Amino acid sequence: MTVRAAVAGASGYAGGELLRLLLAHPEIEIGALTGNSNAGQRLGALQPHLLPLADRVVQETAPEVLAGHDVVFLALPHGQSAAVAERLGAEVLVIDMGADFRLENAADWERFYGTPHAGTWPYGLPELPGGRTRLTGTRRIAVPGCYPTAVSLALFPAYTAGLAEHEAVIVAASGTSGAGKALKPNLLGSEVMGSMSPYGVGGVHRHTPEMIQNLSATAGEAVSVSFTPTLAPMSRGILATCNAKARPGVTAESVRAAYEKAFADEPFVHLLPEGQWPATASVCGSNAVQVQVAYDAAAHRIIAISAIDNLTKGTAGGAVQSMNIALGLDETTGLSTIGVAP
Amino acid sequence: MTVRAAVAGASGYAGGELLRLLLAHPEIEIGALTGNSNAGQRLGALQPHLLPLADRVVQETAPEVLAGHDVVFLALPHGQSAAVAERLGAEVLVIDMGADFRLENAADWERFYGTPHAGTWPYGLPELPGGRTRLTGTRRIAVPGCYPTAVSLALFPAYTAGLAEHEAVIVAASGTSGAGKALKPNLLGSEVMGSMSPYGVGGVHRHTPEMIQNLSATAGEAVSVSFTPTLAPMSRGILATCNAKARPGVTAESVRAAYEKAFADEPFVHLLPEGQWPATASVCGSNAVQVQVAYDAAAHRIIAISAIDNLTKGTAGGAVQSMNIALGLDETTGLSTIGVAP
Amino acid sequence: MTVRAAVAGASGYAGGELLRLLLAHPEIEIGALTGNSNAGQRLGALQPHLLPLADRVVQETAPEVLAGHDVVFLALPHGQSAAVAERLGAEVLVIDMGADFRLENAADWERFYGTPHAGTWPYGLPELPGGRTRLTGTRRIAVPGCYPTAVSLALFPAYTAGLAEHEAVIVAASGTSGAGKALKPNLLGSEVMGSMSPYGVGGVHRHTPEMIQNLSATAGEAVSVSFTPTLAPMSRGILATCNAKARPGVTAESVRAAYEKAFADEPFVHLLPEGQWPATASVCGSNAVQVQVAYDAAAHRIIAISAIDNLTKGTAGGAVQSMNIALGLDETTGLSTIGVAP
Amino acid sequence: MTVRAAVAGASGYAGGELLRLLLAHPEIEIGALTGNSNAGQRLGALQPHLLPLADRVVQETAPEVLAGHDVVFLALPHGQSAAVAERLGAEVLVIDMGADFRLENAADWERFYGTPHAGTWPYGLPELPGGRTRLTGTRRIAVPGCYPTAVSLALFPAYTAGLAEHEAVIVAASGTSGAGKALKPNLLGSEVMGSMSPYGVGGVHRHTPEMIQNLSATAGEAVSVSFTPTLAPMSRGILATCNAKARPGVTAESVRAAYEKAFADEPFVHLLPEGQWPATASVCGSNAVQVQVAYDAAAHRIIAISAIDNLTKGTAGGAVQSMNIALGLDETTGLSTIGVAP
Repeated sequence: MTVRAAVAGASGYAGGELLRLLLAHPEIEIGALTGNSNAGQRLGALQPHLLPLADRVVQETAPEVLAGHDVVFLALPHGQSAAVAERLGAEVLVIDMGADFRLENAADWERFYGTPHAGTWPYGLPELPGGRTRLTGTRRIAVPGCYPTAVSLALFPAYTAGLAEHEAVIVAASGTSGAGKALKPNLLGSEVMGSMSPYGVGGVHRHTPEMIQNLSATAGEAVSVSFTPTLAPMSRGILATCNAKARPGVTAESVRAAYEKAFADEPFVHLLPEGQWPATASVCGSNAVQVQVAYDAAAHRIIAISAIDNLTKGTAGGAVQSMNIALGLDETTGLSTIGVAP
Repeated sequence: MTVRAAVAGASGYAGGELLRLLLAHPEIEIGALTGNSNAGQRLGALQPHLLPLADRVVQETAPEVLAGHDVVFLALPHGQSAAVAERLGAEVLVIDMGADFRLENAADWERFYGTPHAGTWPYGLPELPGGRTRLTGTRRIAVPGCYPTAVSLALFPAYTAGLAEHEAVIVAASGTSGAGKALKPNLLGSEVMGSMSPYGVGGVHRHTPEMIQNLSATAGEAVSVSFTPTLAPMSRGILATCNAKARPGVTAESVRAAYEKAFADEPFVHLLPEGQWPATASVCGSNAVQVQVAYDAAAHRIIAISAIDNLTKGTAGGAVQSMNIALGLDETTGLSTIGVAP
Repeated sequence: MTVRAAVAGASGYAGGELLRLLLAHPEIEIGALTGNSNAGQRLGALQPHLLPLADRVVQETAPEVLAGHDVVFLALPHGQSAAVAERLGAEVLVIDMGADFRLENAADWERFYGTPHAGTWPYGLPELPGGRTRLTGTRRIAVPGCYPTAVSLALFPAYTAGLAEHEAVIVAASGTSGAGKALKPNLLGSEVMGSMSPYGVGGVHRHTPEMIQNLSATAGEAVSVSFTPTLAPMSRGILATCNAKARPGVTAESVRAAYEKAFADEPFVHLLPEGQWPATASVCGSNAVQVQVAYDAAAHRIIAISAIDNLTKGTAGGAVQSMNIALGLDETTGLSTIGVAP
Repeated sequence: MTVRAAVAGASGYAGGELLRLLLAHPEIEIGALTGNSNAGQRLGALQPHLLPLADRVVQETAPEVLAGHDVVFLALPHGQSAAVAERLGAEVLVIDMGADFRLENAADWERFYGTPHAGTWPYGLPELPGGRTRLTGTRRIAVPGCYPTAVSLALFPAYTAGLAEHEAVIVAASGTSGAGKALKPNLLGSEVMGSMSPYGVGGVHRHTPEMIQNLSATAGEAVSVSFTPTLAPMSRGILATCNAKARPGVTAESVRAAYEKAFADEPFVHLLPEGQWPATASVCGSNAVQVQVAYDAAAHRIIAISAIDNLTKGTAGGAVQSMNIALGLDETTGLSTIGVAP
């Protein structure tokens, strides 16, 4: 089976990471690469780490360029995916790496994004309850946000097992690639090296409703989320610290058991042995998720922590994993759980 | 007035930062510098950034070496300060930069440190309610821990104003110098660069009872604290994200007002204008604390965030500030609110 | 003596560093702060580390704004200083932190900058032979480039002592702040963290003719320079490795002696003890220069290495040092040789 | 074909990188993993990024443990490889990732290492003239040092083509993993972040005679090398800046032509298009070498610059590449030219 894939938005960080993974995917043939502001340039000048594609030329993101592929990945600014997707046939697998089709609630979308809601596509987080069923055979996939990936995987076992109160406090640190290749002063190397800073504090970050959607679905009723993202001096990685009050009767053992059960058969989510904690460097460039959980008896709270690579499992690797399921391939095809460290 | 100061533990990070500040302090004359494992070495080989002291030689930490100074700073491993202090006269200002005399509750000490409690000295965080009174004229000072400094200053206004429930969730990121000049594999540059990782999760970090002590004192009754420290890929700085449920009736305006009132006259704590968030780089090398606070209406929670330099305001600068008060000097003498950035 | 100083270009990295130093200068009163694209903004939003100036507002870079000051610092894009300077009186000390007035040879200027040469001002590197004489009483100063500062100080003793052949090979690593607060993709944190890369290779970097000018002046005849700058994953600092063939008869001892003699009385240049090598972290935020030199007997070459903070000694600190001389103040006023480390 | 490989020194950085690559190698089955000080520990605690091997236990480096493998990799401290190798059969492919068998000249070894010379094995840099012939069918391989790999590949085309004088000046920046997982103060994260520093200056670095050996062999007569290594604030990567005087008649075109010819058929060495310069991030985790070369007409010098990942092409990837040749596999098997960036 050879699957021909096009990538719209090939010059950005998400697009570059996707190409890195597709180059190693045995069933994929890389077709058109598009990117509007960079059309006409050699990919080697934009993504100098992708040497096998150095001489490919970026094309315009136009329907005729994206036509004729089995899979089309969209790594576009939010609000642009719907228009591109509707020009592609229903038989084409369209995978949106942006936010447009993640939220089920149109009011949430409009409150956080300020534009009309484009719709809802099957959500590409296979590890969530029902996640693989949603993706099997689909031809439209909404790739989750990077923070919601890290947070939902760290915390859902506490909710499916009924261990935690429905009020989660989350603080996550992200590498700067999560902000994309955007020319903003606060993303300059001189500003980020040696510095930690928060942003989008107080419930305003756009990934908040997505976390609420995922956690509420697993809890069976509304979960409140107070989410604080921070920018860390590293290129890649998310460390998500998720904290929720334990319900009465919860013990360290019951917490451990719930997490062991939740991830026992997961190929990419690794519950670490007790005493070992996740580190983002350990999952750099890999599709793995490292999870650890503790029960703080004095504060009677559960602390679940996950580490992912925001560009791999948090974006492009998650997209490939869902693609594999949709196409009927082995879910792990072309993906690795081995990090590049130190 | 010339105050003669000795530094026990001059070869470590806390000792080095203290010397950096003392060199700029107009009333201080630097006396003996001690450090057991490095005794006999030039300071220039151990602290190459302190050029004016390069030819000073490190001595043994012995009573006769520390004798004859007006102020003695102890930057020693925990458990060692009491023995040194009792050999110094009651008229000598002894400032312990370690943990030994911070906790009021002996049982807390023994649970977290596993050794007998040495006692309790006046606590060197002037900005806390009653903080300056405690320090005026004292000859013994317990310098706060770096995390408790950042957390207590970020959160106490919410408790003194009765705005927050007595259950705080705290996630803090620290630069690696907070772990000292310790030869541990996880502190190697190859391990920390590009990586975020937690440690001491689940209520076991030794700064937890100190935070509880401070916040409970300002709240007037017990405050529960769930504290998660994380190691960030930077040398200096702490970013503390403090989250507590708001009490009924709290609004964004009442939160803002409480914080404006709390810090109106503080020389080192700066409540940032609305919309601007702290960054650790902005306080690098300075004694300033940057604070911002938000009210998340959807989650009905207060998020207070502070940035400090762990070595300056979090250790050596805090020590100098408290020394100034104890000696009757202007509190800001020799200290700066200007960061070294970018 | 109170000297009133204006800063044109207060929102950039050089301007910010200058303000950091001027705030600590006992004779300076900070007057107008200007910056065209940021005019009207609070300085606190642009330079959040300069808390004492947070509420100052940036003004337009206009003659009437800069009038009425004793000293005017120009931190402007190259080509703009001459027009501003000629509107200021001859009695005003004008200090150009840009490149416009550094080169003596108009043809060099035109070849490297492509515009007409504005002229030549006294060159602000006091440590060079004759350097202080040039600056005494002057009212116009050309602040050296950051690389030429590091390279000239590392290498001139080898030339004044006649130890080296007139062909120097130089490789220097600079922190990203050397490129300014410029919104370029290669300066994004995601790109620079974890990466070393060269630029301006092959004799095309604009600091090359300035190095040749300085070294040739000390050698008494033309010195050829092959200069390769590299960008390092750090905000601040330059490490300059300077390599030249030794002349016949040169020994390790004669090299050491020449360097000891050259820097014996220099307040800011520190020849390190044998066996200790410079590190940029040791001079972070300080005006110090750390130098070390070796003689490679097998290759018969001299290797001189210097570390500076590109923003301090390399730009703003060098400017203040030269200002002090021009104004008849002690040369070290307001400047420190103590680095902020680790 | 399934090749069973043992790794002696599996807990260090070189061993970890080798395992990362072997896990992705289709012909390799990973056998015994040894490491003396860590024997008995789970690999997951030592190399947390190698999730598929997390439950493997490190064994003692003993002959009976290493017996029964087709290939044995030695990632041991220098001086230890010979004793281990002589206990392995002549039919076993023994690949020494340390220094012991790299040098042909025993006097060089003794001068730089201070111990008796163990011998010389076929040198594992296939891209050098005659390199592949030396490796075909061999059962002993000396893997080159990381710096000599970067330097030799950058510079040999200038010597094989007779373009450069026989006196090379080299300055290289290395990530900290090049120093291994050694508990030394100068390798602590707090020390290396934000800092560049040289070491081993003046011809004393042990990789110097290896560079001289390689360049002299390609030049056909002795080449003098003045080598200065520097430590950069990054985990991985080497950027080598190599500078040599051009011989009379050399032009930019003749230099370019020599490099294009030298690397035309190389699978891992990529001469970048003119105007694009290597960056270490672009080869992170990959076996690729990025090379660029310039001719500085004013200084009449050739500047050749290469970027490699010191752990991949500089150590473990180079070892696998040579192993492939020795075993008769396609040279690129299991190796990638795709970097993990940003």
